[in-house]
Order: sequence, then structure tokens, then C-alpha cells
Amino acid sequence: MSLATRILKGDIRAASRLMRDIDDRIPSALQSLKELYPKTGRAYIVGITGPPGSGKSTIVDKMVDIFRKEGKSLGIVAVDPTSPFSGGAILGDRIRMQRHATDEGVFIRSLATRGCLGGLSRSTQDIINVMDAMGKDIILVETVGVGQDEVEIVNTAYTSIVVLVPGSGDDIQAIKAGIIEIGDLFVVNKCDRDGADKVERDLRMVLEMSPRRDNGWEPLIFKTEATLGKGIFELVHGIYRHRQALEQGKGFEKKLRERTKTTFLEILKTEATSHFIEKLEKEGEWDKIIDDLIYRRIDPYSMAERVMADEVTNYHCKMKNQK
Amino acid sequence: MSLATRILKGDIRAASRLMRDIDDRIPSALQSLKELYPKTGRAYIVGITGPPGSGKSTIVDKMVDIFRKEGKSLGIVAVDPTSPFSGGAILGDRIRMQRHATDEGVFIRSLATRGCLGGLSRSTQDIINVMDAMGKDIILVETVGVGQDEVEIVNTAYTSIVVLVPGSGDDIQAIKAGIIEIGDLFVVNKCDRDGADKVERDLRMVLEMSPRRDNGWEPLIFKTEATLGKGIFELVHGIYRHRQALEQGKGFEKKLRERTKTTFLEILKTEATSHFIEKLEKEGEWDKIIDDLIYRRIDPYSMAERVMADEVTNYHCKMKNQK
Repeated sequence: MSLATRILKGDIRAASRLMRDIDDRIPSALQSLKELYPKTGRAYIVGITGPPGSGKSTIVDKMVDIFRKEGKSLGIVAVDPTSPFSGGAILGDRIRMQRHATDEGVFIRSLATRGCLGGLSRSTQDIINVMDAMGKDIILVETVGVGQDEVEIVNTAYTSIVVLVPGSGDDIQAIKAGIIEIGDLFVVNKCDRDGADKVERDLRMVLEMSPRRDNGWEPLIFKTEATLGKGIFELVHGIYRHRQALEQGKGFEKKLRERTKTTFLEILKTEATSHFIEKLEKEGEWDKIIDDLIYRRIDPYSMAERVMADEVTNYHCKMKNQK
Repeated sequence: MSLATRILKGDIRAASRLMRDIDDRIPSALQSLKELYPKTGRAYIVGITGPPGSGKSTIVDKMVDIFRKEGKSLGIVAVDPTSPFSGGAILGDRIRMQRHATDEGVFIRSLATRGCLGGLSRSTQDIINVMDAMGKDIILVETVGVGQDEVEIVNTAYTSIVVLVPGSGDDIQAIKAGIIEIGDLFVVNKCDRDGADKVERDLRMVLEMSPRRDNGWEPLIFKTEATLGKGIFELVHGIYRHRQALEQGKGFEKKLRERTKTTFLEILKTEATSHFIEKLEKEGEWDKIIDDLIYRRIDPYSMAERVMADEVTNYHCKMKNQK
């Protein structure tokens, strides 16, 4: 039985195995992903981002409790690109989440950046597809909001949640740039702290000044104290409200098309690159290319064009010879 | 006169213009980069990374003073991928650096993540090439050490500096993962703070336990108080020592080859992707592709293969028709 068939039959170990293969970029993983794709498209994808220490993982943890009580199955993808300096804290979060690990309805997968292909968004989408095919109702994608990559991952979700905290030194002016546009729901977490009201007020002001969304949605703000579970029920039902609004208008169709395009582009990007790399490695071309570049016999921009064109020429000759 | 020629003649406004064109991915920028490449390869590239707030910009600022006193010209590339949440603080650093902006021997360029091509590393390398062609002796590349991308940018430098601070909550165990390997020089900044000795001791221990570098280099640790300029002279001379060690052994050749390969791969990756995107846009294929994917007529992995193969087939037909 193929790995994909086993996954579709509910074999959790097969799913874990495929996710490891995806991480390690084992070629057979691509075949499994192809087999699983027809079974995807049913999960509702929710993204959540915020600065380090804003309590994202705790919020996710508490949301899981509520979703589970409502009988929904969950996939959780935690993207951890910050390992070099702040790996410690994040690891703690992961361990805390493990209390759901014995619950069959919850599947958790952490992802760190790997390899030189810049494949973080790509791997995230592959993992989402596996969880979707497994039949998970809701897939929560959690990323630290530190780079454009992570923000874009969250932006491909149907509902995007942005978490802020009072007193984190994040100026609301700074927050405006880039993050206001992507949030469908905003959370002011640790709202027992001084300054929570100010963060909420500033946020509300910035949202009011921002251009109206073309799907007519007006972002909601929730105040939470995630460690105590306060405000999380309201947040979960905020997700439902946003989903309903999307599905009643044309918002869902639009998000779906954008998401499909963005994720396809990621795949095209990584596949095109690995295609060329494999080719150069197989033909033992690397040393020659590097020499040519170091001795300035050619510039790397023209060399890239040549590698891409050679591909075509070679194929052309092969076709000709086969006749 | 071409933009490249003007840059080679020392026209700083032409250089600024090209860098903007690179940011905006204007096609003619590629032609200028091709023209400049033969004049590159002389600058010594130094990377510096560390967590937000560790004082990297202040260290760079003070190093510039020393390099300038020694008559060296400088290029500075500041990579700011953290804008969504902490843009404010970083902007402050940039403004501080501007005191060098009136010095003709110093060229400063900030780079934020842009576009969906994941082109941060690519743009950084393009900018480095322009500064190199401008004749800068030293190019300092400063990145916040928050993601794998940023760490890799620093890793392509000849000398890589990692900055740590006491009391930042960064556990030394966390630091071990990923960051110890790339540092040639380590800086414990804000060394007047409590815990500086402990950070140094822990770091020394971790370095001693780490496998020996294959080029024989033993990483150096510097204690600095950058705001007062303390320890910066020693750090600059640490760079010279590392450079000398590299050049006396085979280290430099090895670093140069790795760097050439990595930067070429970045170019190949972004060029291959934009090639395919342009093609799909020109042919108005997007809507059809998205429909096929949404209705699960095909999976995105096979679709990517088809787009890549179509390219070849189309070219083949064109060749045939031309005969």
C-alpha cells in the first residue's frame, strides 16, 4: 500500500513519515503529495502571527481546547524560523503544546527553515496539504512575525490573526507597516498588563484610517489573557464570523484563488531551482562554472541565462536524436 | 554613457539609481550588473549578525570610524527583514548611521524584504557587487539574526561576526544551534552589563566543545561596549587577523568558491522563477491554471512539471518553425 493510501486510511505514522520526507526533500515525497492532492481543499486554514513572546502558542493551545470540544479535528503547523538566537523559548512552547499530542484529533508539526532552497513557505504548504488530505477540519498555521516570508505564509490563510501585546515596545506606527493589511482578526493578548487599553485604542484608530477592505470585512479586535483562557472563546467565534462573511460574499473565492496562485508559485520556484541544481550536479558542471565566475570569464547573470537556455538546447538535441 | 560606466567613473548618484532599480527589479538593472561584474572581486566582505537590540548598528558605526581613519573606503548593506513588528527601532539605527552619509568614502544602503520572489539574499548580493565595482575596500553586511535567510547572507561573507549580549534571555544552548558554526569572530557587546562574563564563559565552552574548523581557524571572542567605542579597535584588527589566516592557508580559496556557488544559485533561482512567471503572465495562463488546481483536475506538483516542460516543447516548436 502506498504511503498516500495509508495516510488517507488514517494512518498517523504514515503521515509523520511523509512529513519527515518532505523536510528531508526525499524525491518520493513528491509522488505522495501528488496522490494526496485530489483529497485536499476541505480544511479551513487559519494563520496566526505576532512578535516573539506575544503568546501565540498559548492562544493556539487554548483555541485547540475549544475547537476539540466542538468536535473539530485539527492540524497545527508551527513555523520556527528564529532558531539561531531564540530557539530556547520556542522549544518551550512546543513542549507545552505536547499535551495535545495524545489526542488523535490533533496533529502537530513544527517546521524550521531548512536547506538553501528557501523552502520554508513551500514546506509549510506541503504540510498543510497532507493535513488537509488527512481530513483535518481546521489547520492552524503559527509563525513568528519576523520576516516577510512568515507574514506571507499567514497571508495565504483564509483567516489571518495578528497578535499584539502591550508594553512590547512595538510602536503602533511600526505595526501599521505591513501587518495591518493582513489581519482579519487582531488580538491584544496579556490584556491584564498596563497599556492594553492604549494598544487597543491605537489599533482601532489605525484600522479606521486604513482603506476599507475590498471584501467589505471590518477587522475585529479581541482582548485576551491566554494563559487563563480569557477571551479565547470569543476569538474562536470571531474566526467563524469571518469565515461566514467570506463565504456569503465573494471573499472566499478571491482568497482561494490568491492562495492557489501563491502556493503554486512556491512549488514552481522550488521545483525549477532543484531541477537546475540537479542537472548541474549530475553533469559535474559546478567546478567549471565556479572557475568561470571567479576568473570573471562570464558574469553570473549571463551564466544563469546560459544554464536555462542550455537546458532547452540539450532537450532539443535529444528530441532530434530520438527521431 | 551607460549607468554602469558612470558608476565605474565614481558617480555616486548613478550607483544609488542602480540600487533603486535593483530593488524595483527593473529589467535594465540586469544589464548594468552584467557590465559591472568584471570589475568586482576586490572588496573584502564582512558579515555581522545578532539578535535585535544587540547593538550591531552601533558596532558597525564605530568600526566605520576606525576603517576610515586607516584610509579604507566602505560599503554598508543593512538588511532589515523585521519591518512588520519592529520597524521602528531599526529605523532609528539607520538614522544614526546617517552621520557617515556625508563621507564620500562610505556608501550606505538599507534593504528590506520585497516581493514574492524571496529575493532578499539575491538583492543583497547584487548590491554587494555594485559596491565592489565602485571600488569599496571593505563591504559590511549587517543582518538581524532572526531567520535562516539572514544567517546565510552573513555566511557568504569572508569574515562573519556574531554579536551576543548579556541578559537578553538567549540561552547559550539555543545559540549553539546554527550560530556557533558561522561565527569567525564573536562579540559580547554591552559588556558592562551583569552577566557579560558568564556569556563569554559559556560561549568559550561551547566553542571548545565544537568540532575544529577544517581551515584550522579558532574563533576569537571580543568584549565591547560599542556606545563608548570600547573594544572596537580590537574587533577591527580581529577581522584583519582572520583575513590574514584565510589568505595564508587555503581558507580563502574555499570561502571564495562557496560564496561564488551560493550567490550564483540565488541568481539562478530568482531568474528561473521570474522567467516562468513572466511566461505565464504573457500567455494569460494564470486563470486556467488556477481553475485546474481548484477543481483538482491536476495537482500543483505535476502542473509545475508541465509548465517547465512546456517551456521546452514550445521552444522546440519555435525552432522547428524557423527552419
